[in-house]
Amino acid sequence: MRYHRETDNRLIVGLERGEDLRSSIETLSVQFRIESAYVSAIGALKDPELGYYDLSKKEYIRRRFLGIWELISLQGNISLYNTTPLFHAHVSIGGSDFQVFGGHFFNGTIGVVAEIHITPMPTPLHRLYCESIGLPRWEPGIEKKD
Amino acid sequence: MRYHRETDNRLIVGLERGEDLRSSIETLSVQFRIESAYVSAIGALKDPELGYYDLSKKEYIRRRFLGIWELISLQGNISLYNTTPLFHAHVSIGGSDFQVFGGHFFNGTIGVVAEIHITPMPTPLHRLYCESIGLPRWEPGIEKKD
Amino acid sequence: MRYHRETDNRLIVGLERGEDLRSSIETLSVQFRIESAYVSAIGALKDPELGYYDLSKKEYIRRRFLGIWELISLQGNISLYNTTPLFHAHVSIGGSDFQVFGGHFFNGTIGVVAEIHITPMPTPLHRLYCESIGLPRWEPGIEKKD
Repeated sequence: MRYHRETDNRLIVGLERGEDLRSSIETLSVQFRIESAYVSAIGALKDPELGYYDLSKKEYIRRRFLGIWELISLQGNISLYNTTPLFHAHVSIGGSDFQVFGGHFFNGTIGVVAEIHITPMPTPLHRLYCESIGLPRWEPGIEKKD
Repeated sequence: MRYHRETDNRLIVGLERGEDLRSSIETLSVQFRIESAYVSAIGALKDPELGYYDLSKKEYIRRRFLGIWELISLQGNISLYNTTPLFHAHVSIGGSDFQVFGGHFFNGTIGVVAEIHITPMPTPLHRLYCESIGLPRWEPGIEKKD
Repeated sequence: MRYHRETDNRLIVGLERGEDLRSSIETLSVQFRIESAYVSAIGALKDPELGYYDLSKKEYIRRRFLGIWELISLQGNISLYNTTPLFHAHVSIGGSDFQVFGGHFFNGTIGVVAEIHITPMPTPLHRLYCESIGLPRWEPGIEKKD
């Protein structure tokens, strides 16, 4: 893991083959006390496991995509769930035929490199478990409306 | 709609099942007088309607995708069209087989949640209708080049 | 090319039919001395050429997608390679049947418009050629870890 931190706290992170995407981001979040952030990345993933949430069963359908895939898009965020930084992201991936698959990102290692921008926000963002959807849900509580 | 506003005006917005994505963002834009912004989101959409622009006919081919879809990527922006905030975004969506579809976002409600970052820009960004393409086009006019 | 520059150096860039996406962004990078930036865009591309990196051969598989495609997502960055600004991005594109293709962005012209946000970072970001992967790799060297 190589990175630098801008004066406004943004992190520029380069990951290399074999490094774990989720744990790298969550480790940095703990180290720099990131309690809310926007995350984006491109690169390549190896054996990523993706999910589609089946709301009727309140569980994810999971599939691991074996091999090396271009990481075409990653949009996600860091928030606090039970005081611990949680990385939540959705990704799209593409193979050598350029067809694209995508879903919720569970895990995966870096296939070639990953180029990541993390933009921290000043206000901590918490998640609370929501019974009706079966997932930890954002609770952006300040200046609530409705 | 739950949200908070950072000290630098960024909005962190959580939407829930059944809320309308477009009108939620445009309502917030009016409320906070957002005249230019970058928008990104992940989550899940229900029955989103997408478009592909047929330039030769100057009209969109539209298709509604029934059911709940992972919102894999949303990149978009807010600008002013006839003094009203307009939300323009492109999305990619994925189903339980992880295949990805995408296009111009017309509308759709939230399928499970949506996690949205809105980053306002200080300079108002206007659109003007452009006859040659048949669409309202960005007019970033200050410090013009060419 | 039409654009304005925010007071914090962000660039809001509108491109039109026939303009070249890569050279437009790299020209602006030289003009404004951008040495590190995050880039995102939506719009439509004409005849984009995409790549999938074959790590075993250390070369890209390339395919040009003829016609006009919705630019559904573009995430990328600007860094310095041999002191010159290099634009690196991954894109997903969609046609009239809404199926999505994607990969590394080589080149392409604008099909209808492109709406681009460029967010410069204060610290220069360099690339160095990495023998083991056969690509120029980010070297975010300040405050190195590991």
